Amino acid sequence: GFARVDTHRALRTGDPEVIYAAGKTPEQVVAIARRLHEAHPAHPVLVSRADDAVRGALRDAFGGLCTEEPVGRMVAVGAPPVVSGGKVTVLCAGTSDLPVATEAAFTARVCGAEVVQVSDVGVAGIHRLLATRPVLAASDCVVVVAGMDGALPSAVGGMVGVPIVAVPTSVGYGAAFGGLAPLLTMLNSCAPGVTVVNIDNGFGAGLAAARIVRGPRGNTEAGR
Amino acid sequence: GFARVDTHRALRTGDPEVIYAAGKTPEQVVAIARRLHEAHPAHPVLVSRADDAVRGALRDAFGGLCTEEPVGRMVAVGAPPVVSGGKVTVLCAGTSDLPVATEAAFTARVCGAEVVQVSDVGVAGIHRLLATRPVLAASDCVVVVAGMDGALPSAVGGMVGVPIVAVPTSVGYGAAFGGLAPLLTMLNSCAPGVTVVNIDNGFGAGLAAARIVRGPRGNTEAGR
Amino acid sequence: GFARVDTHRALRTGDPEVIYAAGKTPEQVVAIARRLHEAHPAHPVLVSRADDAVRGALRDAFGGLCTEEPVGRMVAVGAPPVVSGGKVTVLCAGTSDLPVATEAAFTARVCGAEVVQVSDVGVAGIHRLLATRPVLAASDCVVVVAGMDGALPSAVGGMVGVPIVAVPTSVGYGAAFGGLAPLLTMLNSCAPGVTVVNIDNGFGAGLAAARIVRGPRGNTEAGR
Amino acid sequence: GFARVDTHRALRTGDPEVIYAAGKTPEQVVAIARRLHEAHPAHPVLVSRADDAVRGALRDAFGGLCTEEPVGRMVAVGAPPVVSGGKVTVLCAGTSDLPVATEAAFTARVCGAEVVQVSDVGVAGIHRLLATRPVLAASDCVVVVAGMDGALPSAVGGMVGVPIVAVPTSVGYGAAFGGLAPLLTMLNSCAPGVTVVNIDNGFGAGLAAARIVRGPRGNTEAGR
Amino acid sequence: GFARVDTHRALRTGDPEVIYAAGKTPEQVVAIARRLHEAHPAHPVLVSRADDAVRGALRDAFGGLCTEEPVGRMVAVGAPPVVSGGKVTVLCAGTSDLPVATEAAFTARVCGAEVVQVSDVGVAGIHRLLATRPVLAASDCVVVVAGMDGALPSAVGGMVGVPIVAVPTSVGYGAAFGGLAPLLTMLNSCAPGVTVVNIDNGFGAGLAAARIVRGPRGNTEAGR
Amino acid sequence: GFARVDTHRALRTGDPEVIYAAGKTPEQVVAIARRLHEAHPAHPVLVSRADDAVRGALRDAFGGLCTEEPVGRMVAVGAPPVVSGGKVTVLCAGTSDLPVATEAAFTARVCGAEVVQVSDVGVAGIHRLLATRPVLAASDCVVVVAGMDGALPSAVGGMVGVPIVAVPTSVGYGAAFGGLAPLLTMLNSCAPGVTVVNIDNGFGAGLAAARIVRGPRGNTEAGR
Amino acid sequence: GFARVDTHRALRTGDPEVIYAAGKTPEQVVAIARRLHEAHPAHPVLVSRADDAVRGALRDAFGGLCTEEPVGRMVAVGAPPVVSGGKVTVLCAGTSDLPVATEAAFTARVCGAEVVQVSDVGVAGIHRLLATRPVLAASDCVVVVAGMDGALPSAVGGMVGVPIVAVPTSVGYGAAFGGLAPLLTMLNSCAPGVTVVNIDNGFGAGLAAARIVRGPRGNTEAGR
Amino acid sequence: GFARVDTHRALRTGDPEVIYAAGKTPEQVVAIARRLHEAHPAHPVLVSRADDAVRGALRDAFGGLCTEEPVGRMVAVGAPPVVSGGKVTVLCAGTSDLPVATEAAFTARVCGAEVVQVSDVGVAGIHRLLATRPVLAASDCVVVVAGMDGALPSAVGGMVGVPIVAVPTSVGYGAAFGGLAPLLTMLNSCAPGVTVVNIDNGFGAGLAAARIVRGPRGNTEAGR
Ligand SMILES: Nc1ncnc2c1ncn2[C@@H]1O[C@H](COP(=O)(O)O)[C@@H](O)[C@H]1O
Ligand SMILES: Nc1ncnc2c1ncn2[C@@H]1O[C@H](COP(=O)(O)O)[C@@H](O)[C@H]1O
Ligand SMILES: Nc1ncnc2c1ncn2[C@@H]1O[C@H](COP(=O)(O)O)[C@@H](O)[C@H]1O
Ligand SMILES: Nc1ncnc2c1ncn2[C@@H]1O[C@H](COP(=O)(O)O)[C@@H](O)[C@H]1O
Ligand SMILES: [Mg+2]
Ligand SMILES: [Mg+2]
Ligand SMILES: [Mg+2]
Ligand SMILES: [Mg+2]
Ligand SMILES: [Mg+2]
Ligand SMILES: [Mg+2]
Ligand SMILES: [Mg+2]
Ligand SMILES: [Mg+2]
Repeated sequence: GFARVDTHRALRTGDPEVIYAAGKTPEQVVAIARRLHEAHPAHPVLVSRADDAVRGALRDAFGGLCTEEPVGRMVAVGAPPVVSGGKVTVLCAGTSDLPVATEAAFTARVCGAEVVQVSDVGVAGIHRLLATRPVLAASDCVVVVAGMDGALPSAVGGMVGVPIVAVPTSVGYGAAFGGLAPLLTMLNSCAPGVTVVNIDNGFGAGLAAARIVRGPRGNTEAGR
Repeated sequence: GFARVDTHRALRTGDPEVIYAAGKTPEQVVAIARRLHEAHPAHPVLVSRADDAVRGALRDAFGGLCTEEPVGRMVAVGAPPVVSGGKVTVLCAGTSDLPVATEAAFTARVCGAEVVQVSDVGVAGIHRLLATRPVLAASDCVVVVAGMDGALPSAVGGMVGVPIVAVPTSVGYGAAFGGLAPLLTMLNSCAPGVTVVNIDNGFGAGLAAARIVRGPRGNTEAGR
Repeated sequence: GFARVDTHRALRTGDPEVIYAAGKTPEQVVAIARRLHEAHPAHPVLVSRADDAVRGALRDAFGGLCTEEPVGRMVAVGAPPVVSGGKVTVLCAGTSDLPVATEAAFTARVCGAEVVQVSDVGVAGIHRLLATRPVLAASDCVVVVAGMDGALPSAVGGMVGVPIVAVPTSVGYGAAFGGLAPLLTMLNSCAPGVTVVNIDNGFGAGLAAARIVRGPRGNTEAGR
Repeated sequence: GFARVDTHRALRTGDPEVIYAAGKTPEQVVAIARRLHEAHPAHPVLVSRADDAVRGALRDAFGGLCTEEPVGRMVAVGAPPVVSGGKVTVLCAGTSDLPVATEAAFTARVCGAEVVQVSDVGVAGIHRLLATRPVLAASDCVVVVAGMDGALPSAVGGMVGVPIVAVPTSVGYGAAFGGLAPLLTMLNSCAPGVTVVNIDNGFGAGLAAARIVRGPRGNTEAGR
Repeated sequence: GFARVDTHRALRTGDPEVIYAAGKTPEQVVAIARRLHEAHPAHPVLVSRADDAVRGALRDAFGGLCTEEPVGRMVAVGAPPVVSGGKVTVLCAGTSDLPVATEAAFTARVCGAEVVQVSDVGVAGIHRLLATRPVLAASDCVVVVAGMDGALPSAVGGMVGVPIVAVPTSVGYGAAFGGLAPLLTMLNSCAPGVTVVNIDNGFGAGLAAARIVRGPRGNTEAGR
Repeated sequence: GFARVDTHRALRTGDPEVIYAAGKTPEQVVAIARRLHEAHPAHPVLVSRADDAVRGALRDAFGGLCTEEPVGRMVAVGAPPVVSGGKVTVLCAGTSDLPVATEAAFTARVCGAEVVQVSDVGVAGIHRLLATRPVLAASDCVVVVAGMDGALPSAVGGMVGVPIVAVPTSVGYGAAFGGLAPLLTMLNSCAPGVTVVNIDNGFGAGLAAARIVRGPRGNTEAGR
Repeated sequence: GFARVDTHRALRTGDPEVIYAAGKTPEQVVAIARRLHEAHPAHPVLVSRADDAVRGALRDAFGGLCTEEPVGRMVAVGAPPVVSGGKVTVLCAGTSDLPVATEAAFTARVCGAEVVQVSDVGVAGIHRLLATRPVLAASDCVVVVAGMDGALPSAVGGMVGVPIVAVPTSVGYGAAFGGLAPLLTMLNSCAPGVTVVNIDNGFGAGLAAARIVRGPRGNTEAGR
Repeated sequence: GFARVDTHRALRTGDPEVIYAAGKTPEQVVAIARRLHEAHPAHPVLVSRADDAVRGALRDAFGGLCTEEPVGRMVAVGAPPVVSGGKVTVLCAGTSDLPVATEAAFTARVCGAEVVQVSDVGVAGIHRLLATRPVLAASDCVVVVAGMDGALPSAVGGMVGVPIVAVPTSVGYGAAFGGLAPLLTMLNSCAPGVTVVNIDNGFGAGLAAARIVRGPRGNTEAGR
């Protein structure tokens, strides 16, 4: 077989198994998903970076077992998530950051978090950010997605006392250098509590956020 | 005054105020610390990157109110932390990473976490890592500090189901490029649940970890 | 002579002549300053990056003709500036950005602008920025100085309708890469009206701001 | 809705609202433009990076309300600009820089400036630059657009006493590194009064130039 | 002729001649292969980066003389390799690294090594790596292929006492920067005995590994 | 204790234990060396990057057990190496590369190889390289050390059929960028059989070379 | 007109006018070429980076006045060059460097040099380089074109006493980073007399070489 | 001996032998110089990057045989140069570029060229450049030295028809990145006939210029 699937990770960590579909054929994705689903039917299997062809192939193969999220290019195969109670807010700076933000939101949901998604909250119109205060105050973790200058997490950072997961995106041109600019901005954020994931890595941010809001007990039940 | 101290952040976020001493004179550090301490005597004030001169000046100024951590180059002024219950483990790969790891551990403690610190757990002797399994299994968050190849968080990432905060260090030479190498390694980690802070930013990692282990309720009580 | 001094630039452009003292001996700086001052006694001569030795040598040579600004490491030799009426506000994010901000403020003043300087207005405590609104509303140009994440210009950018000159500083460590991080942040700013100068180039920002606030008529009188 | 449009920015800053069309569908662009136009029919709405499809969709939707600029890939929807009096000259070094230069010129016009555009004034034929002296002498702000070596702003910088906004372009190959070379050249310009915007950001340069030539009074009327 | 083929290298070094087919037409590849094959019919000629068209043209030209490896995009023309006895293990971290790993494995085989290939052994599931211990213990050289964080060679490095050739791949996105991240990781590996080849250079790794396992005597017979 | 010494690595891998002395106090180095030496008195302990103070402290502590190599800044503590028979040649391009080349040569010797060192064989005087042919022809592995353009391994690569380990050095200035230039040159070497280690990493190259020349049997006896 | 053609440069510098066709339509190229040709019918007009469409359009427009060089993607329009006597040798390392080498050779010829072109002279087969000694000894200037490791100019540099113009190419992959690797190699060449042009800039190298071999008198007649 | 001195290069290439003194002890420099001088007493030996100690040691060792150039940090030992007739002009942009420019001028002189040096000719005061026209018109080669924006060679490039050797310097700060900015500017110069050497490499530029002005005949006599 072309893949040595790690069918025990879900048990070890409490997270769903994930297939990164970029660079794989629809057939390969379906085959891996089937193996993972059969090993642990009670755990959802996530597929990220799933284009139309991959989503179609999964639908053909698993039918009603699939939950699709076309904006975030994701599919979940299998058991629907049980919400565990922690609240994640996913903010994004611009309309073009939506695919990455939605990938984060969908991932966090499939990992058991309750998720609110708020879009187009750029720093250059600070009143829009201030208007999200009530939502932020009710969050246990905030995922902040931004490209170009990546300044949003710094502004959010001063407004909350919960962990902030920052996601730089490749949105922008010129000296954005494919997401390098917001990545550096976020790593250098003056605001406390900000940690960072890879450029465009909505999946990683969503999963980390879901782990965070499970809280200490959540971890006891799951991954130990 | 040379500094417009933000004396309300502690109330807003539940974290101690922090003074980054690098590039400040001992007198400036003492003055800012005094202002912050007087504004909220019940909250500790943290000083990071405190060299011998700064630590001496703080000792002279605040006496028994100071808790010092010379390896991590930190001082806390004021009320001792109340442990909130969440457990943070701080791992580091090599002896040379100790100052950054200790900065993280001390920060997390001052922010209320219960902290265990384990050193010299390089990936190149994987049995040393495997031997830490019991400690990892009892953690609510793991901070992983490494320079050079920065490979440790990826290995840890497959062993736990709790959030991992990775800290690249500037330890190394040549193609380590001042910490760029481990920074990129960690951002590209294949292991789920890993988020990253700036090179040598033990303070940021410790504070994020403390926020994470406060858990949802902790946040409710503190920062909202 | 070691320098082919351009004694006509002041006439062509309306700006003072400037000597960049870094890498020059105090004697060289005094000699160049003397030549420029004698050519146009009615125009001030600016010296930037002037350390203690250079400032001492200028004081010895020109006595009461010198105006010194030690924080900004600058000296003006000669005729005091005539304020032309335009207003420049110089904001900076942190205490450590003060030398660069002060270089900008002093330069703008010597170039004829009316200058207000406000410090320690980080994005991570957004209320401090909001509190500067009345000052910003009275400005004809805003210079914004910030290191680390360089997020401040983006936040200011949404609050004013006048030109903003952003100055990244080398304040920070690790992935700040000597000012590269805030430089990229500022170049990618989502806020309109932001232009950028070199890292730590307070002089360039101050001069550009002074040219801006002279306004169309100012230009007519001066540089044509 | 996919976009949280900031319909008040025009009032706050005195600039037109702008839609960056790259990465948006024609339908999305039309919908956002409609919302902005309806909110403030007296202010023009700018669309940048508008390809044939987007320009067609805007023409279909708004008809005679549209002003098109195909070279600069821009469209203005709504009220024609009232010229305020300040003069902007837009210079470019080579024929290939024309799209960016035209984006700057059109933006400055829509923002109320009087604009002159001069093309193909490379530094390698310095007499062509010297021939533009009369035009430069009548300008209140000069926008200089150049790719490859980006040397033009330095040469222009010594010829005028007004603010210069430099725009690096991605024109070139090899060690031009997508515009990095002219960006660094411009940031390091030895000429006073030069500020810089992002690679290919004609829009940003045009808007900043228009703000500059409004002059102090212009600002009083508009953005305060 | 367009190529000055070095028909004596095989004699000097004991390795097969290799044609890098990327950027060459199928006709050019066939012509060079023919010249090399005719010069030394007893030595195999390797073709790397051979797409479908090149493989087809070689098949048409050389028929049964060809051995094809489509996953590794390679073809060997001529005499089958004689296994010399040394053992190379080729490990790879993920399914997407397979083309590069297979290029390495096929090259090593054509150069006379006995090769075992093991795939999908990521560091994030360390038990999968530990399970390969028996295979590693029987190896004279280990080639380790990994993209993204490139952490696998460091973990393998602590488990064996034989040379390790690490191959970074361009698999990944964002801050993987086309393979730069795993390249730096591998160059900074804390494990002894690790040397590194260019990103995606499976061929170079396979050839170096084959030279290594020939051992001292092998070298005596071949390249001297 | 500050260090969790891996006292079993020598048994696992057949290599001496190594202490990287940079950034450690002489006392720390002596303490670690003592622990390692006592655990396996029959294996030498290597200390790299040992400055005068560290070398003095080791001499004081271990007396005649020490073998010193001041040019390569190394010390071996304990049992003298048994030469295993394989031959390593260490070439370097310029006089300034000698410390790194000597670090490699000494390491390889302590690891049991027979070593010949040849210096000042730059590519710009190709006859000097051609004159080394007899030495190269008698080698089982060649370590090539070069800074600046790093071209030497490519030239050597066409002359031998044994593995080549290339070591870039930080010798040079300007666009050498601290060793980046020769590192890239070596990674892109057109010559087969070249693998690369970190900038200035003579230790890593020497150890890898010693593993290579042990040959298959050597490995069997040692590290399995 | 879209282009402000510098029709006097040929007179000032003695070189043909050149049109860089990349990013221009065939119609634009023909129009500029016509203007330049009509201004100075006695000087050839060069067109670089001319693809099939551009070459076709030039052929249609100028017929027999065109000299085409498809490998180098160049066309000369007008008066055939008069050979001035100086000799340029253009060497290239690999078959894939031919387009750039041919651009250099054709340019040098049109600028009046006598040109010999030798291909596929890689450093990894040093005897091929040594075989070119007689050609090199008869040269007044050597242009050396190489991608990947870019080591060839260093080797050539030790063999001749005439100026060497080195051209890095974008041939290669991975850590070649689009030609950055050979560019740095060449800039750091240890061989005296080597100067460097932009990546893939065969035109620039050919023109510089032609200027060099004109010799002092040539310059007197032409460009002064 | 620590150095394998290439005592025949002078015969092969016609240039003096050169010793790069940086990183060598005064004793090493004297020893190498003695060996080279004794081998070919009729050829001068050049020493570059010679600080006070090295210059003193050479004076002590060779007395009147030394010619010193302290600004350029150079010494020539032995036979004074015979001027061959070709003319090199060395221009530099600022006072701080003088050490590099003087290294170039002195080297060219020792290699037999007639040299004129003109300083402080920045692009930002274009009239100073235009004033050098007569000097430029009498040159057979122009060396142009500049830091910061590195724009000077582009401006000079349009004024002459002879080869231009551009030298970027490390003068500047911030986004000059140690000379990277002017290096890229010069490599991307739009002016024909410009070739580039390493950052701060005055020696390399001077030697290349001297080779260029020897002209074809000069080469015949010397290096063939
Ligand atoms: N070691 C550290 N690394 C990064 N940021 C820090 C560190 N210590 C303090 N800070 C941050 O720097 C800010 C204080 O900066 P300052 O006002 O210059 O003292 C605090 O709000 C912290 O968030
Ligand atoms: N000069 C060196 N360069 C690179 N790695 C080294 C060097 N010397 C020792 N090492 C590695 O660093 C590890 C020891 O690090 P430490 O535990 O900090 O002494 C050893 O396992 C070696 O693999
Ligand atoms: N292949 C090339 N590479 C670099 N520069 C070139 C090339 N071809 C033409 N040029 C330069 O580009 C200028 C023409 O640019 P343009 O006005 O856009 O046609 C000429 O003056 C040449 O100096
Ligand atoms: N300032 C310099 N910059 C660059 N290369 C130099 C310089 N001075 C000498 N060289 C070169 O370095 C070589 C001498 O190096 P070394 O053998 O270390 O003295 C000579 O062959 C020169 O080509
Ligand atoms: Mg928006
Ligand atoms: Mg250790
Ligand atoms: Mg502060
Ligand atoms: Mg042109
Ligand atoms: Mg896998
Ligand atoms: Mg030498
Ligand atoms: Mg070839
Ligand atoms: Mg000057």
